[in-house]
Amino acid sequence: MSRIAYVNGQYVPHKSATVHIEDRGYQFADGVYEVITIDNGTLVDEGLHLKRLDRSLDELRIAKPMPDRALRTVIREVIRRNRVQNGIIYIQMTRGVAPRDHAFPKGIETAVVMTSRRAKLASPQALAEGVRVITIPDLRWARCDIKSVSLLPNILGKQRAREAGAYEAWQVDRDGNVTEGTSTNAWIITKDGEVVTRAATNSILNGVTRLGIISLIEQAGLRFVERPFSVAEAKAAKEAFISSATSYVMPVVRIDESPVGNGRPGEFAGRLRDFYSRYAAHGGRDA
Amino acid sequence: MSRIAYVNGQYVPHKSATVHIEDRGYQFADGVYEVITIDNGTLVDEGLHLKRLDRSLDELRIAKPMPDRALRTVIREVIRRNRVQNGIIYIQMTRGVAPRDHAFPKGIETAVVMTSRRAKLASPQALAEGVRVITIPDLRWARCDIKSVSLLPNILGKQRAREAGAYEAWQVDRDGNVTEGTSTNAWIITKDGEVVTRAATNSILNGVTRLGIISLIEQAGLRFVERPFSVAEAKAAKEAFISSATSYVMPVVRIDESPVGNGRPGEFAGRLRDFYSRYAAHGGRDA
Repeated sequence: MSRIAYVNGQYVPHKSATVHIEDRGYQFADGVYEVITIDNGTLVDEGLHLKRLDRSLDELRIAKPMPDRALRTVIREVIRRNRVQNGIIYIQMTRGVAPRDHAFPKGIETAVVMTSRRAKLASPQALAEGVRVITIPDLRWARCDIKSVSLLPNILGKQRAREAGAYEAWQVDRDGNVTEGTSTNAWIITKDGEVVTRAATNSILNGVTRLGIISLIEQAGLRFVERPFSVAEAKAAKEAFISSATSYVMPVVRIDESPVGNGRPGEFAGRLRDFYSRYAAHGGRDA
Repeated sequence: MSRIAYVNGQYVPHKSATVHIEDRGYQFADGVYEVITIDNGTLVDEGLHLKRLDRSLDELRIAKPMPDRALRTVIREVIRRNRVQNGIIYIQMTRGVAPRDHAFPKGIETAVVMTSRRAKLASPQALAEGVRVITIPDLRWARCDIKSVSLLPNILGKQRAREAGAYEAWQVDRDGNVTEGTSTNAWIITKDGEVVTRAATNSILNGVTRLGIISLIEQAGLRFVERPFSVAEAKAAKEAFISSATSYVMPVVRIDESPVGNGRPGEFAGRLRDFYSRYAAHGGRDA
């Protein structure tokens, strides 16, 4: 079976799915995206993802290309045509195609691309052993709350992580506090059982998975605290983990050269993962 | 005559010039570019542009797709096929096409796109009257020295300028100093005849036109000083101007609501423009 992509109103073979060279996404990173997980045939928190997509479009003043109802139909059609039961759907919207000029062009249509593919959400080994993160300076722009395709610092950071044999790189601001990973949010759990993550200001992307986890912390018998934490505090924490649409809750067992806690996945992170996995399996808050 | 673009080894009609939806330029802004001016059939500072292109590729560890000799041949062929005597050539290179994953993929080929179009370099009216700039916070990432397509803050800034009836927006760092425009370098001339622009650190793009102007300042009977300047200092300056491959030297007569000098294009900026125009007409330093 060959993969099918959705490109500006058409379902086309993935291989020949193209956009114009003057699509502003290509020339200016003038676009936004979402990745939604498909968990056993169920879209996880589709509503929250579409809400965040709207917000990103609004912040960049890119016209919404179709109402949510139509978007949801296309999403399902792309998944159906690719027969994805477990995996992801990727949605990208850009300002459209226009002769290259920095300012917003008038009278163009928002470009829409969607792809879907099967994917294992997390390797059983990574879950069993936990993962390692490195810390790097946060080089990004001041509007990381917008889920734009302006991801160059993120890919450079992820590459540094890979080359260091790590799963992720935690970005650190000028004050020495962790902002977030290059494609995940960053969390620690203190010795007092406080689950800590940074507030959703302009400095981080407000992860949909992050929001799901926050909604489950109390049920899991833990306390939620939203505040910055330093690299030193993270290294001394009882547990640490990262979250994303595709990683759910992934335990972090090493930060740079320091083991976190006893160097094995922590009990509380495991509990949060169980709670979140059940939540996701039922479609999240959309259920 | 229809326009022709160069895309990955082929000369194709502009209308049907496309790249794959998984080109990393489209999904991650993982690419770099150059704009070279064609002044009366002559490429202006082609050598310096190609050198900077190499540097951008190196910084991002994107493989150079072809030697300069081949690149120069393609550049000329694109210009020839589009019969451009006065205008620009746009060169974009991205890391290539690969299934979406943040870290660098292995074994892919650098994608290359080139377009050329006729363009008036600056409107006679803008030159005669000077232009207005506004000042905005510099929201960009920490590696503005790389000429990447990660231009989202730049387009948002340029749009703000347009909506304010201005030609350009000068970006201002946390210390209150001007870094540069969204697609131009920023300059002032003090009452003492010092031509001041910011040093080429990671905070600005080291403009090729900037370098050309620097090489001409002494000949023009002025003194060059490389240092940051504040918005207040700029507003109180004798003259101000911006520079870019397409604007050359463009006098700035108003910053936000403050006229610069007597509110008319300054004598020294005019002199620098004359010197630079002659320099450009001869191909710049390549001559």
